[in-house]
Amino acid sequence: MTTKTLAELAVICGATLDGDGERVVSGPASLSDAGPTEISFLANSLYEKLLATTAAAAVIVSSDYESEREDLTLLRCENPNSAFTAVVQAFAGDQSAVDPGVHPSAVIAQSAEVHEEARIGALVSVGEGARIGRNAVLHPGVIVEKEASVGEETVLQAGVQLFRGVTIGARCTLGAGTVVGSDGFGFDPSDAGWIKVAQCGTVNIEDDVDVGANSTIDRARFGSTRICRGAKLDNMVHVGHNALVEEDAMLIAQVGLAGSSRVGRGAILGGKVGVVGHTTVGAGARVAGGAVVWSDVEPGADYAGLPARPKVEFLQTMALSRRLPGLLDRIKALEARIQELEASQGDKT
Amino acid sequence: MTTKTLAELAVICGATLDGDGERVVSGPASLSDAGPTEISFLANSLYEKLLATTAAAAVIVSSDYESEREDLTLLRCENPNSAFTAVVQAFAGDQSAVDPGVHPSAVIAQSAEVHEEARIGALVSVGEGARIGRNAVLHPGVIVEKEASVGEETVLQAGVQLFRGVTIGARCTLGAGTVVGSDGFGFDPSDAGWIKVAQCGTVNIEDDVDVGANSTIDRARFGSTRICRGAKLDNMVHVGHNALVEEDAMLIAQVGLAGSSRVGRGAILGGKVGVVGHTTVGAGARVAGGAVVWSDVEPGADYAGLPARPKVEFLQTMALSRRLPGLLDRIKALEARIQELEASQGDKT
Amino acid sequence: MTTKTLAELAVICGATLDGDGERVVSGPASLSDAGPTEISFLANSLYEKLLATTAAAAVIVSSDYESEREDLTLLRCENPNSAFTAVVQAFAGDQSAVDPGVHPSAVIAQSAEVHEEARIGALVSVGEGARIGRNAVLHPGVIVEKEASVGEETVLQAGVQLFRGVTIGARCTLGAGTVVGSDGFGFDPSDAGWIKVAQCGTVNIEDDVDVGANSTIDRARFGSTRICRGAKLDNMVHVGHNALVEEDAMLIAQVGLAGSSRVGRGAILGGKVGVVGHTTVGAGARVAGGAVVWSDVEPGADYAGLPARPKVEFLQTMALSRRLPGLLDRIKALEARIQELEASQGDKT
Repeated sequence: MTTKTLAELAVICGATLDGDGERVVSGPASLSDAGPTEISFLANSLYEKLLATTAAAAVIVSSDYESEREDLTLLRCENPNSAFTAVVQAFAGDQSAVDPGVHPSAVIAQSAEVHEEARIGALVSVGEGARIGRNAVLHPGVIVEKEASVGEETVLQAGVQLFRGVTIGARCTLGAGTVVGSDGFGFDPSDAGWIKVAQCGTVNIEDDVDVGANSTIDRARFGSTRICRGAKLDNMVHVGHNALVEEDAMLIAQVGLAGSSRVGRGAILGGKVGVVGHTTVGAGARVAGGAVVWSDVEPGADYAGLPARPKVEFLQTMALSRRLPGLLDRIKALEARIQELEASQGDKT
Repeated sequence: MTTKTLAELAVICGATLDGDGERVVSGPASLSDAGPTEISFLANSLYEKLLATTAAAAVIVSSDYESEREDLTLLRCENPNSAFTAVVQAFAGDQSAVDPGVHPSAVIAQSAEVHEEARIGALVSVGEGARIGRNAVLHPGVIVEKEASVGEETVLQAGVQLFRGVTIGARCTLGAGTVVGSDGFGFDPSDAGWIKVAQCGTVNIEDDVDVGANSTIDRARFGSTRICRGAKLDNMVHVGHNALVEEDAMLIAQVGLAGSSRVGRGAILGGKVGVVGHTTVGAGARVAGGAVVWSDVEPGADYAGLPARPKVEFLQTMALSRRLPGLLDRIKALEARIQELEASQGDKT
Repeated sequence: MTTKTLAELAVICGATLDGDGERVVSGPASLSDAGPTEISFLANSLYEKLLATTAAAAVIVSSDYESEREDLTLLRCENPNSAFTAVVQAFAGDQSAVDPGVHPSAVIAQSAEVHEEARIGALVSVGEGARIGRNAVLHPGVIVEKEASVGEETVLQAGVQLFRGVTIGARCTLGAGTVVGSDGFGFDPSDAGWIKVAQCGTVNIEDDVDVGANSTIDRARFGSTRICRGAKLDNMVHVGHNALVEEDAMLIAQVGLAGSSRVGRGAILGGKVGVVGHTTVGAGARVAGGAVVWSDVEPGADYAGLPARPKVEFLQTMALSRRLPGLLDRIKALEARIQELEASQGDKT
């Protein structure tokens, strides 16, 4: 087991030590779970009350944090969150799952070009004409079909499946079981049932894209389905044919994009959001978890609900709908009062 | 790179040429993306305004379309959509991902029956007693467990997993990573926690069914979970145990069918629709994306919402709920006015 | 084909025979599907009307059930549901998909410890330092990365992917294509785009846990994502980093838990439910299918809707919202009547 002193960790994460630097810790933990040989952090004020009771040896806090715990060593810094990440990595050590070279059980087609510094795990298949770049890592069970291409330093986790001809950029990570280049879902009606529309395009994933596990990115009907530089997709995200995900957009788990939809630069779609076909979510827009986008969302807008509408309007309608029983009572009361007025009016005439 | 003249393409897609037939194009593209060596199409009036600015060499349009662009060659035909598909296929050429024969790294059990004209990719496993039909194609990494059966001309894409004894018909396509025959989800409560209910049935997928990538179709508790002829399922669709999907039904991405639910012939479930257990969606019904079906839907009906209700009612309620702030104001105004009337009434009595 | 007499089946399922014990049946079926050589059961009163018309040879019913069908043999018992399960299993016989021993095509790393009574299927990969317990079953295509651990009698179905260092307890079943230990989804914003937050923790699945097919359970940022003893997860369930699923909790298909969320002991989340990050669903709570939990749910509570709220309130609001058109009419009528009163009031003054 790796151990480190608090003084060492303060250097690693660029923090100022406020307490006992000789104390030895064995790993990172959350404020509630940490024991006396662990180090924790406070970045979210939601958890501030846990500082009073944590058993941690030390806590990484912001520079000006005032603590009432005199027994607790503090590591003060600008950004406790990223400082803690540095600490976590210091303890994690080498996490590589695949040894250098090509595992003897891998099946590499004769015309495939695999860079000599790529790592290819057990039971991987690389098809004819495929290209695997320098320092790329293919975990066990990955399937790369004919003519697909994987950029430098890209990691394909276990069981990733790349269809014929798709292109993955540099420094990407594709999560286990993710499929890139499956057929788009297109069928035309006919008297004999549905007729499949040929899906002859491809998928182009640019540099620095992350995709989670068991996601699916369909090939275009023609041209490319595109995931642009720096976009981040979580687990079980579905991207339909000819969709476009622009730079730095973020799609949380179980999002679904229908065919020919677009997500603008830096937009964030919460978990389980759906976007219907031929619809655009503007740059920088945010759509709350569970919403279904039926029509275009303006750049920078905040949306929520089924169907999605401006979040302010959604929340206002939700709040008012809770007052419906009261409104009904007020209408009944008005009806009674007016009936009485009318009756007395009638008496007089 | 393949190139074709517009005259050649007019023949391929059965269109009448209106313009320069000698011009050479290199591929298909959308109206907005197309460059001067590409051909596009107009089938959806949503995109009609793009015709004024497209850089395409030619556009496939309906027979009677009137264009203001004299520089643009038109290919006129009855159905621009299917004509464009023919053009797309003409450029795509052979897309087969698997070479003829059985790849030497595949593991075929002794008692398995693999038709000599089937194509079996690298690192495929076919278990004892399994049957693979004529011209079936198993992409790399497919797992067919014992006694499962795959019909003629059916394609199993990379990493498909068929459990013991399931049956897949002819001319089906199962998308990468799709699982057929996983255990149904059934547990009975007990004092010691949940007790698993044995799932001893199977799955029967009939002819001409398409299933997308990373979908899951559970085996029945007893009898069969059935996907009938011509049904089309998209990516990440979940079909619970003993569910029945009838002929030509269409389930868009991320739909979930709970145990013993039924989807009638030709019904269409939008993306992310859920259907609770023991519930039926009638033949030809349409359920809008994101809806959750809590009780039976009549044949031919149009539903939406959580829980799903007739779409007309859903839209009306949505529209009215936006008027709630106004209603509240009107009630307040009524209360003020009636109080004034009552006061003046009181003055008089 | 296996056949059994009704007398034999009555013994197998502990029922009292009421009818012809010599009659031979060939398998179980539902009341509507059963033919004259099959046995069925009635456990859900929803299906009681089918008893009048079923063609089954016999039906398992509760002890005191009164039938009007004199031709139908009844097997009477306390719990028709579990009795039928015993019958189903009696007909199912051995369902094991993997033969004893290690398949010659499996790739077992030198330092892996595989128990001699474990069953390892074709094209399985077990990495360095991994441990596979006694009677564990690894279906074809399973990937176990370095230092991961699989407990006794645990079943990993086809294509399961375990990441480096994750721990699976005893008597678990993980469904085909399920991924355990994929990276948590964490990114910090920066001027250069999203910066990945290192995910250095692990996943700990305790004993007697079932997970369905194509689910994903992310590794913790630090510490463990935990699925506690006896929890049951269905297909395509997503569990984010550092989430905690407590004992005997049940997550139906397509549920998504965001990072650091918690699901209490015995809580039940319906299909497609989402839980946002850092949120807790209390012990024994029930959340209806399709709901999205935006804030904590009290133990034992019943929730529904988007966002989730108490189910009683949700249903009441839903019912009232259908009365909105009527409310609008009543307000209009009130306005007309009060205007009339005011006019007549004006006349008098």
